Amino acid sequence: MIDANLPFEAQESEWISGEGPTHDIVVSSRIRLARNIAGFPFVNRATEQERREIVSLIAQKSPKWAGGMVFIDLNTVSSLDRHLLLERHLISAGHMRGTRPRGVAVGADQSLSVMVNEEDHLRLQMLRPGEQLRQVFEGINKVDDEVEAEIDYSFSNRFGYLTACPTNVGTGIRVSVMLHLPALRLCGEIDKVRRAARDMQLALRGFHGEGSEATGDFYQLSNQTTLGKTEEEILDTFVEVVIPSVVEYEKSARNSLMNKRRGYLEDQVWRAWGLLTSARLISTTEALQLLSLVRLGLNLDLLSHVDEAAVNALLLQCQPAHLQFIVGRQMGQGERAVARATLIRERLGA
Amino acid sequence: MIDANLPFEAQESEWISGEGPTHDIVVSSRIRLARNIAGFPFVNRATEQERREIVSLIAQKSPKWAGGMVFIDLNTVSSLDRHLLLERHLISAGHMRGTRPRGVAVGADQSLSVMVNEEDHLRLQMLRPGEQLRQVFEGINKVDDEVEAEIDYSFSNRFGYLTACPTNVGTGIRVSVMLHLPALRLCGEIDKVRRAARDMQLALRGFHGEGSEATGDFYQLSNQTTLGKTEEEILDTFVEVVIPSVVEYEKSARNSLMNKRRGYLEDQVWRAWGLLTSARLISTTEALQLLSLVRLGLNLDLLSHVDEAAVNALLLQCQPAHLQFIVGRQMGQGERAVARATLIRERLGA
Repeated sequence: MIDANLPFEAQESEWISGEGPTHDIVVSSRIRLARNIAGFPFVNRATEQERREIVSLIAQKSPKWAGGMVFIDLNTVSSLDRHLLLERHLISAGHMRGTRPRGVAVGADQSLSVMVNEEDHLRLQMLRPGEQLRQVFEGINKVDDEVEAEIDYSFSNRFGYLTACPTNVGTGIRVSVMLHLPALRLCGEIDKVRRAARDMQLALRGFHGEGSEATGDFYQLSNQTTLGKTEEEILDTFVEVVIPSVVEYEKSARNSLMNKRRGYLEDQVWRAWGLLTSARLISTTEALQLLSLVRLGLNLDLLSHVDEAAVNALLLQCQPAHLQFIVGRQMGQGERAVARATLIRERLGA
Repeated sequence: MIDANLPFEAQESEWISGEGPTHDIVVSSRIRLARNIAGFPFVNRATEQERREIVSLIAQKSPKWAGGMVFIDLNTVSSLDRHLLLERHLISAGHMRGTRPRGVAVGADQSLSVMVNEEDHLRLQMLRPGEQLRQVFEGINKVDDEVEAEIDYSFSNRFGYLTACPTNVGTGIRVSVMLHLPALRLCGEIDKVRRAARDMQLALRGFHGEGSEATGDFYQLSNQTTLGKTEEEILDTFVEVVIPSVVEYEKSARNSLMNKRRGYLEDQVWRAWGLLTSARLISTTEALQLLSLVRLGLNLDLLSHVDEAAVNALLLQCQPAHLQFIVGRQMGQGERAVARATLIRERLGA
């Protein structure tokens, strides 16, 4: 059902299930570099033939990069496969939905991917669990150097890396973190983060990036412009100012709940547990919302008998494509609601 | 804390916890007789002194009625005691809230009570679990005869028993059943019952009668006028037409859910179970609503591991006065929400 070259079954997605620094609040760190290949028009102006040439080029080169990547032609795999890639954050929603020649190269541990013919010819991205932006920066730069050794990037001495969208021109870097902010939501203070993000010219987005809802209290926070700043400046701001502030907001909301509204908090967490282990029908959105509260309960030691790894893994497994992949067949929405509830009860040992 | 003459602690309230014919849908059967004492003005026109005389009269006579009743002067017992009597349906909400001389005589097994100086001088009522209207009719008539042998009732040869409110004049009888109609609510068909009730000049009321909400899908269905009909006619209509129709509506809704929306039904029932056994804060209204769904699940064999007696007992125990009585102290609303959730988890063995 899934491309046999992608060892999805054997492997959890480390960035969401794994542990990392400040992992209770900073779920994952991601850096994406937008790159274009000299001699080709930008994707939106490229012909079908030119797009195919780019896909072929990367399909041929990528297996040697980063210790061996797997290239996936998105036009030949199934819709379910494309959804799986999206749910693992290896491709974007736009890339999943596209129809023209495009693909993605995926690194062995799934922390690295190179989208081909998304908005830019190449979008290199690396994802790691917890707050590991500096490590990710180092990692993605190494890959970027490897790629650049074989591919001639579009580069202007005046502007830097040329990109299809002006907001990416310059360094072409997007730094982002996936944050888990359940206490801020329970305290009704998410708007505080939203305002702070806007003031710092950052974007606060949902679980699956641009245009997606904040599901289960998971938010992606990323920089919006890259021109006029060095990569290091952008990174430093994130690591030294942005992340510590948001982590502090969330921690303070958690403390406030623990000290002043502990009964309410425990009730919310336990109700989530009760519903997850009892429901017979459950949507992705509700499952993520309830898992989010259980995750909070675990982080605050309000639940002790719960398998944390199972909860984190379910954040991925309860999503439609993963669910169908695990069950082993395509299902409509109603059937998925039953299968999801069953899977959750099984995995939580209820 | 509770009047020592009332053996509440030792005894469950049989009408709600006990078994009876069609008990899954007809929770209990009740008949109430409105009677007034000749030689006294109706309660609303009686002086304080006259009311006191009536209270004294019944306090003196009632211990010999129905094999021995306990008389409670509602002006001398605590507010919690009055609430306990209300929750057991031994007095009405209006009687609980009153301030002028009034009381209630309660039969040994709590199926019988005589309210004194409620709307009428005497309101005799008998309550039994399940559909037992004819047995209740027989029982209350026996008590009525006993009382009439000692008390001179206001009676007109033309109109029958004279009562404070014209709707009760005649037989002074109110026949009512407490119905559990969760499937009709889940199917959105409660209005069907409401319309049918209106067409038959019946009143459909909430858990605690007049002016109360339908909590936990429990409804009281009763006749509205008594003039121009014999007691037997009223009773026959109830036993042969009204109850069988409503039971049929509810059964058909249950069948429809079981056959066409079983997944939805199981989900509702199991979610209720999950919340009851997990919540740390719970209101009376929510508890009754969830217990109602679990009760439905038990009746339809969707839940097997659940103690049905515990569920039925909790319908009473989760109410504010009973809860405080069980815990052994007065509590504010917030504290009750915690105590209620704890009690429910304990009693359901969670």
